[in-house]
Amino acid sequence: MSTVLNYQTIKVSDLREFAQSVFKYIGCQHEDAALAADVLIKADLRGIDSHGVARLSGYIRLWEKGRINPKPNISIVRETKSTATIDGDAGLGLVVAPKAMDIAIEKSKACGSGWVAVGNSNHFGIAAYHAIKALEFDMIGYALTNASPLVAPTYSKERMLGTNPICYAIPAGKYEPVIIDMATSAAANGKLEIAQRKKKEVTTGWIQTAEGLQTSDAHALKQGGALLPLGSGIETGSHKGYGLGAMVDIFSGVLSGANFGPWVPPFVSFLEVLPNLPGKGLGHFLGAIQVDGFSDVSVFKSNMDLWIERFKNATPINPAQGVIIPGEPEAAHFKQRQISGIPLIEDVVDDLKKLALSYHLHHPF
Amino acid sequence: MSTVLNYQTIKVSDLREFAQSVFKYIGCQHEDAALAADVLIKADLRGIDSHGVARLSGYIRLWEKGRINPKPNISIVRETKSTATIDGDAGLGLVVAPKAMDIAIEKSKACGSGWVAVGNSNHFGIAAYHAIKALEFDMIGYALTNASPLVAPTYSKERMLGTNPICYAIPAGKYEPVIIDMATSAAANGKLEIAQRKKKEVTTGWIQTAEGLQTSDAHALKQGGALLPLGSGIETGSHKGYGLGAMVDIFSGVLSGANFGPWVPPFVSFLEVLPNLPGKGLGHFLGAIQVDGFSDVSVFKSNMDLWIERFKNATPINPAQGVIIPGEPEAAHFKQRQISGIPLIEDVVDDLKKLALSYHLHHPF
Repeated sequence: MSTVLNYQTIKVSDLREFAQSVFKYIGCQHEDAALAADVLIKADLRGIDSHGVARLSGYIRLWEKGRINPKPNISIVRETKSTATIDGDAGLGLVVAPKAMDIAIEKSKACGSGWVAVGNSNHFGIAAYHAIKALEFDMIGYALTNASPLVAPTYSKERMLGTNPICYAIPAGKYEPVIIDMATSAAANGKLEIAQRKKKEVTTGWIQTAEGLQTSDAHALKQGGALLPLGSGIETGSHKGYGLGAMVDIFSGVLSGANFGPWVPPFVSFLEVLPNLPGKGLGHFLGAIQVDGFSDVSVFKSNMDLWIERFKNATPINPAQGVIIPGEPEAAHFKQRQISGIPLIEDVVDDLKKLALSYHLHHPF
Repeated sequence: MSTVLNYQTIKVSDLREFAQSVFKYIGCQHEDAALAADVLIKADLRGIDSHGVARLSGYIRLWEKGRINPKPNISIVRETKSTATIDGDAGLGLVVAPKAMDIAIEKSKACGSGWVAVGNSNHFGIAAYHAIKALEFDMIGYALTNASPLVAPTYSKERMLGTNPICYAIPAGKYEPVIIDMATSAAANGKLEIAQRKKKEVTTGWIQTAEGLQTSDAHALKQGGALLPLGSGIETGSHKGYGLGAMVDIFSGVLSGANFGPWVPPFVSFLEVLPNLPGKGLGHFLGAIQVDGFSDVSVFKSNMDLWIERFKNATPINPAQGVIIPGEPEAAHFKQRQISGIPLIEDVVDDLKKLALSYHLHHPF
């Protein structure tokens, strides 16, 4: 049995204003509320529906539990010419990460590259938002974050890693930049949520049961199962996805003084934070690399255009579906949704309406 | 039908001396010959048999074709405080990459991190060799390289990317460092070669036929097929493996002025280099990051030990097979083979013997 979902399309400016009013309600200053709203709206514009306003009430529930500081004092706790560690003071990752990325960009301007480990933070939205900030300076942007433990390492049935995304934003010339933004699990949790809502089975290779067996039951995750690393099974390289997830966890968590592995505080407020944590909050790792530190920018951009053209023209298996350049579908969504507005599924609209009513906020639904 | 392979075990010092004599024969200076031999021997010691002396005759055949400069003038063509681009002058990647990594380490000492793009180079052996060099300075090492096109991007049947490995070497305290060294394809070519030699089928998800269909026939690659990106099929995330391979190609090739995508010169000498190349040779990207730029080294190392212990103790699916820490199997091989010597399969011994005879070199086989 599969269920059809109903959508309501909201004007971008209305949705942005609403998100901003929610962040102001919890105590964010105007500028921070606008920034946090921008991160969510850009996710929706790029078609990453799981990371847009669908998460808004999740952030608010964390605030209700006292786990979000709406007025953080974000500080540099350690630095060299090209590196820094930031304490996010339990602020919204949506606010802490863009500010940390600004520091990476400043360091990169001064010495060719800048790298910032961020501890004591919270969920930062889509990684691409932060990496993309580097592009306007002709830099390559880089963003990692650890996240609530949902993924089991190869050979284990225990949830030890988040979907720990890796993002690279690479400038091109006449074409859209190449944006690689990927969870290090076989499937992002958002895809599972959609399957659960639609009451559909999922592809084998995404999840395992509580006993560690691969399954197509989308609900297995809620019944003690786990997401599988990219590569799915050991024979097809799940140790590589696990290795990448581990790297993200170490850079984001261990290097920054945040929590890591199973100690990363869960995003969902109904799960308790574990006792005896080794660090503070969760962590990110952000980087900005000057193209000019390696190559004439114009040469690099024209070679990127050549790269993109050559890959677009790689012989397709099926002539109806050519090769996709990383970031291409998101750029297409962005263009279209800026005009048409953002489609939200009924569940999300209901959830946001409830939020608006309980806080007496004006809403566009 | 499956074939049993015969092995001959060679003393490490004898094999090292032989490899060194081969590199001297082609004109390498003593120090460079010793360095190149060390890269191959360390691969064999770590159990990466496909990248050790099994490749020795491959490098020599490239030299015979005039594609290796045994006395390269390795130069910095561009630099900032934390970045540099190196021209490898068509030298052995086995020599160029370690020297480029030394530059990354020096830059990291001066400003917290160092990043070197290397163009006009050749195959650099195992990525881990280069990344590991950072560890003795309490730095995290990073190494990428592009390689001969064998991997088809998602939706394509054309070979556009190499197995383009990613390596991170991360120091720990009382435990072995965490070494993540992985091809961005579902399986490395070395695994296919072993299956071909053993006349065994391979796991579905590693390769596709010339028509773009997944197959278990290990010979499909030689019949116009391609390796699949990590993730194998689109439903299980092959676009992520393709994205990672693309990132490695862009950092190693486009940023450095080397070739990229299908233009990367093939490692096997019987395949011709394409005309109208956009760059020179192939490329690498190397990095060294000071732990001290982010954290007290002692705090980082003790948290890495905690990370390792916690992951080792993650609940196993099967009690007989616990979770493996990245780099653990290679460290175990290293310890054992330093004592027992290096097992070489008959084909490799025959190949090396032939090489020794044709160049009148003393050999240990």
